[in-house]
Amino acid sequence: MEIPYKIYLEENEMPKQWYNVRADMKNKPAPLLNAGTHQPATLDELSVVFCEELAKQELDTETAYIDIPEEIIGFYKMYRPSPLVRADCLEKALGTPAKIYYKFEGNNTSGSHKLNSAIAQAYYAKKQGLKGVTTETGAGQWGTALSMACAYFGLDCKVFMVKVSYEQKPFRREVMRTYGANVTPSPSDTTEIGRKILEQFPGTTGSLGCAISEAVEVAVKSEGYRYVLGSVLNQVLLHQSVIGLETMTACDKFGIKPDTIIGCAGGGSNLGGLISPFMGRKLRGEADYEFIAVEPASCPSFTRGKYAYDFCDTGKVCPLAKMYTLGSGFIPSANHAGGLRYHGMSSTLSQLYDDGLITARSVEQTSVFAAAQQFARIEGILPAPESSHAIRVAIDEALKCKETGEEKTIVFGLTGTGYFDMVAYQKFNDGEMSDYIPTDEEIAKSLANLPQV
Amino acid sequence: MEIPYKIYLEENEMPKQWYNVRADMKNKPAPLLNAGTHQPATLDELSVVFCEELAKQELDTETAYIDIPEEIIGFYKMYRPSPLVRADCLEKALGTPAKIYYKFEGNNTSGSHKLNSAIAQAYYAKKQGLKGVTTETGAGQWGTALSMACAYFGLDCKVFMVKVSYEQKPFRREVMRTYGANVTPSPSDTTEIGRKILEQFPGTTGSLGCAISEAVEVAVKSEGYRYVLGSVLNQVLLHQSVIGLETMTACDKFGIKPDTIIGCAGGGSNLGGLISPFMGRKLRGEADYEFIAVEPASCPSFTRGKYAYDFCDTGKVCPLAKMYTLGSGFIPSANHAGGLRYHGMSSTLSQLYDDGLITARSVEQTSVFAAAQQFARIEGILPAPESSHAIRVAIDEALKCKETGEEKTIVFGLTGTGYFDMVAYQKFNDGEMSDYIPTDEEIAKSLANLPQV
Repeated sequence: MEIPYKIYLEENEMPKQWYNVRADMKNKPAPLLNAGTHQPATLDELSVVFCEELAKQELDTETAYIDIPEEIIGFYKMYRPSPLVRADCLEKALGTPAKIYYKFEGNNTSGSHKLNSAIAQAYYAKKQGLKGVTTETGAGQWGTALSMACAYFGLDCKVFMVKVSYEQKPFRREVMRTYGANVTPSPSDTTEIGRKILEQFPGTTGSLGCAISEAVEVAVKSEGYRYVLGSVLNQVLLHQSVIGLETMTACDKFGIKPDTIIGCAGGGSNLGGLISPFMGRKLRGEADYEFIAVEPASCPSFTRGKYAYDFCDTGKVCPLAKMYTLGSGFIPSANHAGGLRYHGMSSTLSQLYDDGLITARSVEQTSVFAAAQQFARIEGILPAPESSHAIRVAIDEALKCKETGEEKTIVFGLTGTGYFDMVAYQKFNDGEMSDYIPTDEEIAKSLANLPQV
Repeated sequence: MEIPYKIYLEENEMPKQWYNVRADMKNKPAPLLNAGTHQPATLDELSVVFCEELAKQELDTETAYIDIPEEIIGFYKMYRPSPLVRADCLEKALGTPAKIYYKFEGNNTSGSHKLNSAIAQAYYAKKQGLKGVTTETGAGQWGTALSMACAYFGLDCKVFMVKVSYEQKPFRREVMRTYGANVTPSPSDTTEIGRKILEQFPGTTGSLGCAISEAVEVAVKSEGYRYVLGSVLNQVLLHQSVIGLETMTACDKFGIKPDTIIGCAGGGSNLGGLISPFMGRKLRGEADYEFIAVEPASCPSFTRGKYAYDFCDTGKVCPLAKMYTLGSGFIPSANHAGGLRYHGMSSTLSQLYDDGLITARSVEQTSVFAAAQQFARIEGILPAPESSHAIRVAIDEALKCKETGEEKTIVFGLTGTGYFDMVAYQKFNDGEMSDYIPTDEEIAKSLANLPQV
């Protein structure tokens, strides 16, 4: 069968079940712990914060396939299947014998893969009869995705947006408002934790960890609300498995055999979603792949962090998670990949990384934007800064193949578009972008405050 | 055959030829006239301004099908075929018996259909051995598209961007710069006409007509450069026929029979592209359709303009075109659909309208943004303000069907996305958007300055 330039699956080839990679893991990811008792968090405890069905998914380490409800499949059909694209203009420009494919998740208004989990979480909230949900957003992709999902199901949506993004990305904010969301800059005086942080640090421009604490507080204190999160959690990786499942179906259909699969990694939602089904095959001994997680050198949780229990948020109101972490007090420098600035990494991916099943690489942002610009000009898509981390390493790998003559098949996740990141592109265009790599001392200092578990 | 929610044609079903509707028109569109002699512009005259092959296409009123060069098909495959989507969530929300489909052209980095002609024009410039091209851009969609196309073929690209847009849309400018284009705010002191206009109107924020004059001047005076234009011209409608051809192929494949086809109309590139092949069938007596052109009430060239020869630009350096026009001195109020603010309309569409083959409707921008918001929330895509004119009328038509019980099939063109139009959305979200309709006196005054032909 001739392989089209862009592979779009038929609607009836779209996944009808999500894949839960934990079911095939021998070493299961460590459980979330109650922050007070340090005992594994129970379904009842989690259900205070999360929708019940999502709390169940969070705890389920055994069920390999979970049915995707009809309503969610209906929504997925509005923007999925996403295309698996052969980057053959890029291959030619690089002069590489490698074959490069990318799974493009940016063709929806939220501009990223985040919508895959947003719609699932909104659905379960609606099904539980809730009035609405709360969340935080940094770069704004998750907040946008959730706003769209909530508009679709008629749910109220309260977004705490990290103050610096709220001010620097007014357009992201307006997209959320267009979808009817209520957007508050964080820290705010609308929550106890927000007021406390503002008192302590009057000039703070906020952080993800702080916005999480505010969103959780409002969810727990408001009748008919729950908190939802766009990354890190097991449930999110579960929903995001649609990315990998579609990719695998497309590869199988056209006889494409990936050698290397590359994804950017912040909290892990994209990487986990893309690699999960392939990882399943690897875990079951059916195939082998090299998986590369790419993170910013400014926030290197895999490559320089510690595998330990840590707080998920600044206010320490969330359960503890065992993960590769830089410490919950770690403040990454102001790099332009806002989606990759979280201090920790998904527990599931952390375990897989610790087991040597994933490799990781950190890259500096000027080299990331150089790759982004090159990709934009050659392949026509203006990539998000986050996604461009994967592009950087895909190009590097392809150039290695040029040296060795290897005809590797490289697949990477192009998670989104950069339309709302033009301030960053402008800095790059003007030659004013810099790199910052934290010192060992900075990281050690931040790691000194891990909880004693 | 079951109709999928989104119809993506197979790559081998994509058009291999453009369709030139002029070949089937009994009353041909009036020719461009030399601005000095008032005689029909010759190939030689046009070739000073335009690439030669494009000048030929401009003048060709006989050839119905023109082969699309392989290189252009190769580029089209990077972002085409575009989907024809059933708006069934919208239908349900409206409670209409009408079936609504939209052809979505926004899934590419330029964010609109403009890329279809940009890549063709860049290709012919490259083939002619030129160094580069010049153009103007208002809202920025055309400039972005052309920058992408020029980056792909390694051509220099000089864009004159209407000053008010240059300042209000810095992100559009940065996308163009990311693609390597040279962007100058217009009027500028880099051209004679620019300096003249600046002298006359020191505080002017520019206009499309003025930017066209500057771009043409630079093209004519620079060795190895030609001028390219994103709308109005016959060649542009020819290239944009891919929209209509794909739509028709998809409709035929799945037995969809459109009754009403709706497109927004500024210079006519989208409307012309979408309806051309259907119009061909109508002209040949093979089928009948209702075509509706939708224009802003603030710039109503079809509904309130005059069918006459007029200047295409402020500096009066371009050939004269016979078209529905509001007069080349007409300054539309600052509405937010920058792509629909041109004073004139494509000659081809003007002739078809004059022959009663197209109807037209004008709509006010607050009602357009209400439709945009409704569509965004229900169908998940954040539409461009321009495209939202078509959404407004598609919704109105569907609501009429609700009253009458008619099961009409409505197809409209969703030309692009609104990611760079959030200032406008913010105004609407804040309840600060207003409407402005020019008075009869204003239009009459502007029309008093038509050239004497």
